[in-house]
Amino acid sequence: MTGPGVAWLLDLAGIFVFAVSGALAAVRQRLDVVGMVVLAEITALGGGILRDLLIGSVPPTAFTSLGYVLVPLSASGLVFFWHPQVTRLLPAVLLFDAAGLGLFCATGTLKALDHGLSPLHSVLLGVVTAVGGGILRDMLSGQIPSVLYDRQLYALPAMLGAAVTAAAWAADLHGGTVTAGAALLAFALRVLALRYGWRTPRPRGVPD
Amino acid sequence: MTGPGVAWLLDLAGIFVFAVSGALAAVRQRLDVVGMVVLAEITALGGGILRDLLIGSVPPTAFTSLGYVLVPLSASGLVFFWHPQVTRLLPAVLLFDAAGLGLFCATGTLKALDHGLSPLHSVLLGVVTAVGGGILRDMLSGQIPSVLYDRQLYALPAMLGAAVTAAAWAADLHGGTVTAGAALLAFALRVLALRYGWRTPRPRGVPD
Amino acid sequence: MTGPGVAWLLDLAGIFVFAVSGALAAVRQRLDVVGMVVLAEITALGGGILRDLLIGSVPPTAFTSLGYVLVPLSASGLVFFWHPQVTRLLPAVLLFDAAGLGLFCATGTLKALDHGLSPLHSVLLGVVTAVGGGILRDMLSGQIPSVLYDRQLYALPAMLGAAVTAAAWAADLHGGTVTAGAALLAFALRVLALRYGWRTPRPRGVPD
Repeated sequence: MTGPGVAWLLDLAGIFVFAVSGALAAVRQRLDVVGMVVLAEITALGGGILRDLLIGSVPPTAFTSLGYVLVPLSASGLVFFWHPQVTRLLPAVLLFDAAGLGLFCATGTLKALDHGLSPLHSVLLGVVTAVGGGILRDMLSGQIPSVLYDRQLYALPAMLGAAVTAAAWAADLHGGTVTAGAALLAFALRVLALRYGWRTPRPRGVPD
Repeated sequence: MTGPGVAWLLDLAGIFVFAVSGALAAVRQRLDVVGMVVLAEITALGGGILRDLLIGSVPPTAFTSLGYVLVPLSASGLVFFWHPQVTRLLPAVLLFDAAGLGLFCATGTLKALDHGLSPLHSVLLGVVTAVGGGILRDMLSGQIPSVLYDRQLYALPAMLGAAVTAAAWAADLHGGTVTAGAALLAFALRVLALRYGWRTPRPRGVPD
Repeated sequence: MTGPGVAWLLDLAGIFVFAVSGALAAVRQRLDVVGMVVLAEITALGGGILRDLLIGSVPPTAFTSLGYVLVPLSASGLVFFWHPQVTRLLPAVLLFDAAGLGLFCATGTLKALDHGLSPLHSVLLGVVTAVGGGILRDMLSGQIPSVLYDRQLYALPAMLGAAVTAAAWAADLHGGTVTAGAALLAFALRVLALRYGWRTPRPRGVPD
């Protein structure tokens, strides 16, 4: 980490990848250009907006930064014209999405801690930051949010990264290296789960 | 009423029962453990969170109290392992749910009045407190919120309890006895409606 | 424009028409009276509530004004008893809805600018004000929000009106005439699009 510039670039990169996943969902659902831009913006910014509303940091960052609005717009433009090519890159998109997941659960937890919330609640808000946009994307597409049923390890890696962030903070360990370590842990668990097909359990007795 | 201890226990009991209804919905929709915990937390806390966001009381109570997060988690654990048994207890769950409905419409109205909102708006927010979590539960499960179409008396008892709370407050009657009375009225109307199958009307001319 | 009285009446008229569209959606979805009132209120007030939460103006105007709550209630009463007649007036409803769209994108943008948001973000919030209620209406009715896929020019006229409002504000042009002009532009584009069947594009290569 070499200062706020790197953190800012990583943040925008995570937002870009989340926006691509929203724009691709719009293609699958045969939405028009308005639907694509809305899904891209909400997928990318929705988790952070929910977190900011809940911790009382208004206007949310998404409404004070031009980059936060323009990056999803550019992701929409890319997918609008070249979605067949982007779809072919899906394995890479999944990898970058895992990186965004790791980054946002760590930074979301930190922001909640900075606003005075308890470690437990900050972990919750870190997870909300990481998965909230995807939940809103699925609800707007008329689908049950995939994180609630598809048994992939998606929310759990975010919870791991958030918990490590909160534990380090409680142990008075601060700084970019700690955040990066927590984000990497979440990223690694997500990638391993993708690679080996790890699944979350269903309630006892519910058949596959 | 013997003080805030009783009110606090009742509050957590209401949250527990709402969480059970959310976790059971997750079983019906064949969600995984993540979906179950999310539905349990949102069903139990969603109404109060919406109310707190709307009256500007942030962070919402759910994000300042450990019990509010842990109680739905324990309800999820119960339903995860013993949902067949819990489903068999459904009549009792409906009864406790009616008690939660009564409690939350009264306490939600009071909190809005305390924040300076008008009696009419406080009644609205009391109803939001009582039924908002269930609406979010149904939206996340990919269903039309049952309170909007199933013709059961569910929102109307909440409105009665909220209106009585606001009327007592406007008449300068305060204290736990008044709140308990309003909650009991809403509870009684809900239970009578369940017992006798009372229905809300559909728009004129819409067939059954 | 002859003062705040006219603006206030126009505002309530726009809310009335949006509420009628929500109540008619409830008839189509065969909801009961509770569902009708909820859809009428949310369709009429949802966009403004979202905007107010996002700019930190709480409680939202809808929770400080009696008229904002009572007007959708009266629209529900009208549709509850006379929905066949109201449905026959649909061309007129569409025209008034276009007027509400124009009005709310302009006033929503202005309110965000007044709260110190950047012109770009204020345009976004103007569009949220105009189309947010309809999106919530569709989500509560179990449908994909029509503005995301139906290729009608609905969000784009709102964006035009919002952009003209923000541009005028940036050029230090203020006052009711400017707002009215921006609202009229959005209204005119919406009506022309309805008249001539103009459509928004789908992503390249997605068939009709």
